[in-house]
Amino acid sequence: MNLKEYITIVDGWPKEGISFKDITTIMDNGPAYKYATDQIVSYAQEKGAELIVGPEARGFIMGCPVAYALEIGFAPVRKEGKLPREVVRAEYGLEYGKDVLTMHKDAVKPGQKVMIVDDLLATGGTVEATIRLIESMGGIVVGCAFLIELEELHGRDKIGDYDVKTLIQYDV
Amino acid sequence: MNLKEYITIVDGWPKEGISFKDITTIMDNGPAYKYATDQIVSYAQEKGAELIVGPEARGFIMGCPVAYALEIGFAPVRKEGKLPREVVRAEYGLEYGKDVLTMHKDAVKPGQKVMIVDDLLATGGTVEATIRLIESMGGIVVGCAFLIELEELHGRDKIGDYDVKTLIQYDV
Repeated sequence: MNLKEYITIVDGWPKEGISFKDITTIMDNGPAYKYATDQIVSYAQEKGAELIVGPEARGFIMGCPVAYALEIGFAPVRKEGKLPREVVRAEYGLEYGKDVLTMHKDAVKPGQKVMIVDDLLATGGTVEATIRLIESMGGIVVGCAFLIELEELHGRDKIGDYDVKTLIQYDV
Repeated sequence: MNLKEYITIVDGWPKEGISFKDITTIMDNGPAYKYATDQIVSYAQEKGAELIVGPEARGFIMGCPVAYALEIGFAPVRKEGKLPREVVRAEYGLEYGKDVLTMHKDAVKPGQKVMIVDDLLATGGTVEATIRLIESMGGIVVGCAFLIELEELHGRDKIGDYDVKTLIQYDV
């Protein structure tokens, strides 16, 4: 199955000059969604993942079925103020300014093998901050899986020491 | 399995007087997450669901594995400004003021059997607005499934004509 055929390119969103990759047309197609998920399930299994971690909100769409398929847990990464109990925090840079990602401080157990799953590897800021959160709790990041990679943004360079799998690549 | 044992009650969050039901301690437990999901999978199968619809962000956590398990699609309900293509909109009341939910206007096909999945049935405002979105596209809501029901808020009354399944009930 060529997953790229199920992506919808939306030019000029969210702003001029951006060619947005809309994944909802993969998700609302049962066989395409299952096919994409199963690639990540195999990768997570091969790496021995014991927990899936995904950033809100599209990381939930990609990561939750992987956790379900392997009968392992899923722990969310959320923006500040969204999680009800004590959290660990990591700042990350945006185009202008900074933002903060959080996880519950008991979400990852020391020594636990964790796979990060998200929809998009762009500049790598989100995944790099997520790695810091997981490692601050003693977790071991065994891999990072993304539906889409925007190669020209060189996100892989930011997480060069970690294993990365992407299902669809764009060079622009 | 008694799912209630995996819920963490957080008193005073997000504000004084609220006894928040934290579902992350179900999600990060593989067997509990799978057990809860499988109840909804059976219900969706029994109702002949052809598409799962879930509101951001916890509706993604509950609904996406259901879609995956049944090899059917998942369509997200998002806050205004989050979806890249043309949307349908539904206003719904909050404690103070109003908010807007959106779906891509091609997310549901006319005549398609749709199940709504979310984490929480409270006052029912979100699910009622989601039903309006689905029906505006010609979809048929065959059921609404929630992990948790807060019975004293009478959300069922707001969607009395629809089939509802909840896995965990609280009376306060």
